[in-house]
Amino acid sequence: MSDATENTPEDASADASASTALREEAAKLDAADGLAGRREAFVLEDEKGERVVYLDGNSLGALPRSVPARVADVVEREWGRLRIRSWTESGWWTAPERVGDLIAPIVGAAPGRIVAGDSTSVNVLKAVVAAIRMAREDNPARTDLLVDATTFPTDGYIAASAARLTGAAVRAIPAEGIPGSVGPRTAAVLVNHVDYRTGELHDLPGITAAAHEAGAYTVWDLCHSAGALPVGLDEHGVDLAVGCTYKYLNGGPGAPAYLYVRRGLQPRFDSPLPGWHSHADPFGMSHEYEPADGAQRGRVGTPDILSMLALEEALKVWDGVDMAAVRAKSLALTDFFLRCVGSYVPAGRVESVTPAEHARRGSQIALRCADAGEVMAELVARGVVGDFRRPDVLRFGFTPLYTSFADAELAARVLGEVLAERDA
Amino acid sequence: MSDATENTPEDASADASASTALREEAAKLDAADGLAGRREAFVLEDEKGERVVYLDGNSLGALPRSVPARVADVVEREWGRLRIRSWTESGWWTAPERVGDLIAPIVGAAPGRIVAGDSTSVNVLKAVVAAIRMAREDNPARTDLLVDATTFPTDGYIAASAARLTGAAVRAIPAEGIPGSVGPRTAAVLVNHVDYRTGELHDLPGITAAAHEAGAYTVWDLCHSAGALPVGLDEHGVDLAVGCTYKYLNGGPGAPAYLYVRRGLQPRFDSPLPGWHSHADPFGMSHEYEPADGAQRGRVGTPDILSMLALEEALKVWDGVDMAAVRAKSLALTDFFLRCVGSYVPAGRVESVTPAEHARRGSQIALRCADAGEVMAELVARGVVGDFRRPDVLRFGFTPLYTSFADAELAARVLGEVLAERDA
Repeated sequence: MSDATENTPEDASADASASTALREEAAKLDAADGLAGRREAFVLEDEKGERVVYLDGNSLGALPRSVPARVADVVEREWGRLRIRSWTESGWWTAPERVGDLIAPIVGAAPGRIVAGDSTSVNVLKAVVAAIRMAREDNPARTDLLVDATTFPTDGYIAASAARLTGAAVRAIPAEGIPGSVGPRTAAVLVNHVDYRTGELHDLPGITAAAHEAGAYTVWDLCHSAGALPVGLDEHGVDLAVGCTYKYLNGGPGAPAYLYVRRGLQPRFDSPLPGWHSHADPFGMSHEYEPADGAQRGRVGTPDILSMLALEEALKVWDGVDMAAVRAKSLALTDFFLRCVGSYVPAGRVESVTPAEHARRGSQIALRCADAGEVMAELVARGVVGDFRRPDVLRFGFTPLYTSFADAELAARVLGEVLAERDA
Repeated sequence: MSDATENTPEDASADASASTALREEAAKLDAADGLAGRREAFVLEDEKGERVVYLDGNSLGALPRSVPARVADVVEREWGRLRIRSWTESGWWTAPERVGDLIAPIVGAAPGRIVAGDSTSVNVLKAVVAAIRMAREDNPARTDLLVDATTFPTDGYIAASAARLTGAAVRAIPAEGIPGSVGPRTAAVLVNHVDYRTGELHDLPGITAAAHEAGAYTVWDLCHSAGALPVGLDEHGVDLAVGCTYKYLNGGPGAPAYLYVRRGLQPRFDSPLPGWHSHADPFGMSHEYEPADGAQRGRVGTPDILSMLALEEALKVWDGVDMAAVRAKSLALTDFFLRCVGSYVPAGRVESVTPAEHARRGSQIALRCADAGEVMAELVARGVVGDFRRPDVLRFGFTPLYTSFADAELAARVLGEVLAERDA
């Protein structure tokens, strides 16, 4: 990749020296990285076998190398040869709870609280309707559903639908304002743990405690935090949570989402989607619905087995991973990336909209950039893959299991080159 | 496989002669079968490579031989190498409508009416809530949801949930009684096209016409008819329909379900699950929900891509298949199987609960048998795979694309042997 060409020789020399220092620093950081070995578990090349700097794992996680063989076995042997027998012999029936128990340690939950299946949107409906129902049962005057104002759109749409279906009212409140807004009329709050656009980390313990203080239920959307930082669902007493598995959990495109219900609330979980897989005796084929106990109560219909078992295999890369180490690396990566951007990109050309404060930062950096769409297209063409969010945001996701410090340095350097060429 | 041993020599000789005649007849029927060639498209052996008589395709369809290579490519190249680029470059984004258009001719729909995704249960909720909303919009006095009394349980549970969420009331009515029960208070009717247990085919044209005459909307569950017989959704003016794809459509375990909305109703389709994939401008990330036009409006969140594309590949076996020929073969198979059962099984030992009349028969035969659970276990052990539905039903599904008349004869013969041994 070329250096910028419009600088004076002195500038170029200073630039080269700064670049050399950052590359050396990246190499040292990578050498000292306790998670560096996990990178080998993933496919990170493109279709021509060339290295890609993949900073879009917050949209679609990379392929764990062990997944193709597992999927092939599921298709060819379990489906192809055993067919219907696999529901029992290959453990298909119990896969949603088994996968839930693999997700559990990543988000700080004990076994038996999480079930995998359906999409995030569908799980938002289950969780929000169930939360409103519990609040109403406590006190019929609880009619408000508070939703963080910068929510990922689908959560807002589904929240509005849940409110319409239950006679509740949605109020959009900035996440930091929720503790001051919860009150005796609040049924539930729905908050994105990390903002999909800015990467801002919302205060899960604080908001949860404030909601509980007011007698309301919490529903957390973990799509942009699970696998990137410790969540502590059990520890912080979160009531319900949902998340996808195709971002930091690397489950594959459209992999099943999941639903967490706090242990003490499981017997009260009253789903708007009471399908036969959540029945206490599914094969009794009774016309009376009797919900199963535990996490199974969150199931609906027949789960997507191919995707479910691909996800199960993908989750094996988390075995033995310490989420505190993941968080430490994530923050180090985003800090380092911001320093590299500061060095390679002229001041004012891009502006980070991700909080600088560690306590408020997820695992991505979002840079506001006037020509973000064209800049991202050019970055992708040069093997640096982030994504573009309208109207003007460059989004770079840092996935601690496979992003290296060298990736971060190279991405910033190429960004600097692209911007220099565009501005020349 | 042994013959029954308790017969006299004369009986055994008569039995052997009847058996020879039936086997010869099966061979002739197979030789004359225009669909016989499709059988080669499926894997029908067990894990040891041995022939299986697979009569459970009405529960989980067999694996089409071309699916494993397609799935491997999706996993290894589209996900593994292209990653996020595949949403556009590999056509992931448009797969739900593309797959819907492949299902369309099988159920008698024009392109643009069907979208694939989510489970059948989730699609029942979408369809029933939308139907009730349309009826209410026509006339707020329409408060009743009629559900066929022998419905597959999940449809009943979800119907009850839909009614609870919309303030409607469920009435369970035998399917044949629905035309006489619809009236000015009826909002919608939810009917299983083919009864999952008995295999009874319900009168889709007649019930739909009666509902329309009364001003009500129809929701048909096609799980046990799609791919087994012509459905004629457009022709009969069905309003909404749902179905799974893992039975006669061979999409794989838990493959995405689908939703049909009649063309004229698409602009009125008001989903309880308005996820971002059904937004008119999904990447606009607007906080205001504006539904997309057409089939896309039935989408919710990110679809399960691995399962979706396995299904897309599996549907290729339908290319050029005439549904009238499928129906003719299905009826011939079930007729022949019943004759073979009549020949091999002592009178009264089992009783068919599937209607003898062709117009009322789907593509399975359900035999009431006191010791059905143990009998089916023994059949499976001998390579004849049907299934058992509590308390006393042996279910045999006939999938015209890969079931042969020889399969039907052998299944009945082995059933006769098993019963003879048990009764010896």
